Amino acid sequence: MSRLRETDPSSLHAAARRVMARCDELAGVSADDGAITRVYLSPEHARVNRLAAEWMREAGLVTRQDAAGNQLGLLPAADPDAPVLMLGSHLDTVIDAGRYDGIVGVLMAIEVVRLLRTVSDDGRARSPFPFGIEVAAFSDEEGTRFGKALLGSSAVAGAWDDAWWDLADADGVSLREAYREFGLDPGRVGEAARRPGQLVGYLEAHIEQGPELDRRGEPLAVVSSIASARRFQLQVEGEARHAGGTPYDMRRDALLGASEAALAVERICRGEHHIIGTVGQFEAFPGAVNVVPGEARFSLDLRGEFDARRDAVWSAISRELDAIMGRRGLRWTAREVHSAPAVFCAPLLQDVVREGIVAGADGGAAAPATLFSPAGHDGMALGAIADVGMLFLRNPDGVSHHPDESVASADVALGIRALAEAVAHLGAEPA
Amino acid sequence: MSRLRETDPSSLHAAARRVMARCDELAGVSADDGAITRVYLSPEHARVNRLAAEWMREAGLVTRQDAAGNQLGLLPAADPDAPVLMLGSHLDTVIDAGRYDGIVGVLMAIEVVRLLRTVSDDGRARSPFPFGIEVAAFSDEEGTRFGKALLGSSAVAGAWDDAWWDLADADGVSLREAYREFGLDPGRVGEAARRPGQLVGYLEAHIEQGPELDRRGEPLAVVSSIASARRFQLQVEGEARHAGGTPYDMRRDALLGASEAALAVERICRGEHHIIGTVGQFEAFPGAVNVVPGEARFSLDLRGEFDARRDAVWSAISRELDAIMGRRGLRWTAREVHSAPAVFCAPLLQDVVREGIVAGADGGAAAPATLFSPAGHDGMALGAIADVGMLFLRNPDGVSHHPDESVASADVALGIRALAEAVAHLGAEPA
Repeated sequence: MSRLRETDPSSLHAAARRVMARCDELAGVSADDGAITRVYLSPEHARVNRLAAEWMREAGLVTRQDAAGNQLGLLPAADPDAPVLMLGSHLDTVIDAGRYDGIVGVLMAIEVVRLLRTVSDDGRARSPFPFGIEVAAFSDEEGTRFGKALLGSSAVAGAWDDAWWDLADADGVSLREAYREFGLDPGRVGEAARRPGQLVGYLEAHIEQGPELDRRGEPLAVVSSIASARRFQLQVEGEARHAGGTPYDMRRDALLGASEAALAVERICRGEHHIIGTVGQFEAFPGAVNVVPGEARFSLDLRGEFDARRDAVWSAISRELDAIMGRRGLRWTAREVHSAPAVFCAPLLQDVVREGIVAGADGGAAAPATLFSPAGHDGMALGAIADVGMLFLRNPDGVSHHPDESVASADVALGIRALAEAVAHLGAEPA
Repeated sequence: MSRLRETDPSSLHAAARRVMARCDELAGVSADDGAITRVYLSPEHARVNRLAAEWMREAGLVTRQDAAGNQLGLLPAADPDAPVLMLGSHLDTVIDAGRYDGIVGVLMAIEVVRLLRTVSDDGRARSPFPFGIEVAAFSDEEGTRFGKALLGSSAVAGAWDDAWWDLADADGVSLREAYREFGLDPGRVGEAARRPGQLVGYLEAHIEQGPELDRRGEPLAVVSSIASARRFQLQVEGEARHAGGTPYDMRRDALLGASEAALAVERICRGEHHIIGTVGQFEAFPGAVNVVPGEARFSLDLRGEFDARRDAVWSAISRELDAIMGRRGLRWTAREVHSAPAVFCAPLLQDVVREGIVAGADGGAAAPATLFSPAGHDGMALGAIADVGMLFLRNPDGVSHHPDESVASADVALGIRALAEAVAHLGAEPA
């Protein structure tokens, strides 16, 4: 059942075309010629914030940049003390990125506001619901510049860690210095934080970053949870020796141990449901053509739907590594560099997103897909202070973090309507 | 049967102690504090040439530095037109090297001359054989500086390739420039070349750089051949994708393909006799924690006793790589960057080295070990113009190219005597 006043397909398609055009415009704001790279606290960050603010104001929102560089736009409720429903995603990118990851969710949120807003007696746009609607364009989700993800949304979640101030980028610029260069005051980052009672919830639309919807031939999905993730840096130690003179039975070849380990990660994770492990970095030392490697280092990114299962898989991997390294006379160590629990989308927000998809499809999607998200999202940070809900858009072939990343304008139109319906359903819930 | 005039154990041990002390002295001539690094055409190269020349003259040799920076010392025969038997090895090192690889062979050759020389009527030292004896301290065997090995001995073998002049070191200095800085004239490098008829043969003593003699509890071995070697740079191409969003069945993970390849090299070569394959370099790209690697590059160093078997093993590896990469949807290519045929030690020189070991052991080594050398040596270059023979010294635990490299003074004493006996046996052969 639609709860929108206006569901004219042509206006939805115009909204989707506006989103697509703005994604193209933002793609032009990059530190790299011919590629999209836009990192936290960069001149490009400032430029896209200005553009987003302009588009927010044009949709009737009251804009501000918060103390962590997040760009915000508020559609106030009639009651100035009412809590807000936050809609958003992020505007930063990885290196040589696609143009939709994060970005499309911010721009869709602006269109949702345009569909839902009413105009009050003073001529200002207002939320028709017992809560305000705030569009959030988060400043750092990818962690590209400082190696630590979710900096923008963590500030909003009140989870800022002062240890982060000393993180440095590739040029040695600290996060603290970058704040000042951007015109922000590190001492005031706490002002970006919201208290739990201030938020009705957080809803985000995002491309799937995976192939599941494309395979199913469906445009939209409800997200059930965001992956639990752990990251490790592993080190294998053997003995560097002359490649000619050292027979196999005397070798303690760290590279071969690490190769077996990478294959073991694949074998163990493939046998599990909703567990995925990736070795993305791999180096061998001393790295000479004619020397048996005495040391190897590699990374492990381990994600799962449930924390307990993910941890059990890590234990299984650890046991397998003990066996591999034991056979080869190698030692191995692992340093955990990141750990985040799974964030489960709130049942109510899952319900309204599902109702929104059904209503927006005019009966064409009786049972929308429900997907777990192996990729991380701003909701992982927001989950600390608010209920989280997410809507996934079909992502052809699942290509993301790559210039070929795409989304169909027709799917964006369906997504805008579904998200607007979801907000309207939430607005109709008994308080 | 000993053919030496003097085999007093105390004088042999004094000779060995002199060799050990000089190895220590040369170890102090290094570009790196606290480590041994001595590369071609460096100030350290000039210093060790001066030291070696001084020790050669002290042993009665007529010294000169040739057009390729090799330090030579001649013990002339009575007939000034007689050919020479060359005894030698190299004085250059790898980075953070041991102190015996190459060096001990040069210093032992000087001691062999001291044992064998006679004094002629004019008071000069002379060879008592129908050939002169020339000690060669080759200037570049390791190829540390310019990435191309055997530069010094290749010049002597007349195998200099003018393409090498443009090889550059890590600082961008070309081989041509380095020649001039060292005081050598690139245009005259051809003057270092010997014609085949000028050499009776080439004999070299060298540490084994492997554990075989140590395992057998024997001090010395006859070398049968120097390995045939091929080197490849391999590239695997897949697709870089988001580590969270890409399920296993959509991955084309280049790192996993390369890991399987490295393990296949080990598996195939272990099953062969006297074939050894080493993956020493390994990199994955883009090398981000959360991106499935789309590309991997690795090196392969493949050595074998026989060229044909080595090539058959490369074919087997290639077929296995086709299978691995085919299963994983990856492409692979290999670029051959080095190829050298096996060099077989001449039967006569193997015989005299064997007789030398037996005679030197005073009957204690009825059947000395005969070993194939998987490591490369100057003899690989000299083989083009002369018969080659080699004597291996026990190398505890087979550690080489490493500061822990060692050799026992008692084994050096046995080696000096065996090499001197070998030369004397050769001198007693019918011409």
